[in-house]
Amino acid sequence: MTTTTQQETKIGASKDVPTITITREFDAPRELVWRAMTEPDLVARWMGPRDVKMEITQWDLRRGGSWAYTARRADGSEDDFATGFFGSFHDLRAPERAVQTFTWEGEPDGVALETLTLEELPDGRTRMVTTSVVDSFETRDMILASGMESGVVQGYEKLDALLATGL
Amino acid sequence: MTTTTQQETKIGASKDVPTITITREFDAPRELVWRAMTEPDLVARWMGPRDVKMEITQWDLRRGGSWAYTARRADGSEDDFATGFFGSFHDLRAPERAVQTFTWEGEPDGVALETLTLEELPDGRTRMVTTSVVDSFETRDMILASGMESGVVQGYEKLDALLATGL
Repeated sequence: MTTTTQQETKIGASKDVPTITITREFDAPRELVWRAMTEPDLVARWMGPRDVKMEITQWDLRRGGSWAYTARRADGSEDDFATGFFGSFHDLRAPERAVQTFTWEGEPDGVALETLTLEELPDGRTRMVTTSVVDSFETRDMILASGMESGVVQGYEKLDALLATGL
Repeated sequence: MTTTTQQETKIGASKDVPTITITREFDAPRELVWRAMTEPDLVARWMGPRDVKMEITQWDLRRGGSWAYTARRADGSEDDFATGFFGSFHDLRAPERAVQTFTWEGEPDGVALETLTLEELPDGRTRMVTTSVVDSFETRDMILASGMESGVVQGYEKLDALLATGL
């Protein structure tokens, strides 16, 4: 039996540069958060909104490796929705920093460069900051308008529950 | 026997976003420019300033592949200078578009996302535009202040000469 404190997910858009910064704390040690964010079997269990299932099709976790997954909204109907995402692992510094690229197949010219950092907090807690940069404010604002927020917030709520199991 | 028209390399820094844009035209068809920019044996013959030799140590040219090279200033002295660079090939769309990441090992937290486009011009000529984005103006201005310009300009002059051979 576990209890999970409700955490706030902050999604910030800089006025000065075309970035999106997401800040979130987790009631779990950094090593555990790193594992949940980098091991594909764990990532598939929390990434994305509640009504979507992630199928990881490529996950080569090393500097210069690459990743891909398909998000499926499977409700048993004929017109099940599926859409793909892909990118590269530019650099990895376990358990504190990962830099990767990110593209949604539906907008193949749009590429974000994402930097994840995990900081140890007192009492076995962890602060995550991800900064995504694109090359124009127009692209950045399209991403913000895409409805990403609910998927991000719901994903981290699923991650809270997964971390609470101790993995 | 070949003659090479002197081409201007434009290096632009946006006021609005932390990007560097390099524009250059080449007296060669796009397929040839693409080959010279993506085949490692050819890249090693023109990349970088005149007094530096590039040794390509990794070159896996595919979406999700990666690259690395070492730049050596080899003048026969004991204190030969060498420094490394690495990145990922995020996406490739031959012969017109390549997106890759870029880090200099000397500044491992600095990561640029680079988009190369090649546009066909009349008379078998090609216009190249590369846009590099980083996540702060401070990092962008450090790159500009690093003396990159002479290396870029000299590299493209070597590329002009290489392209003039018809490969």
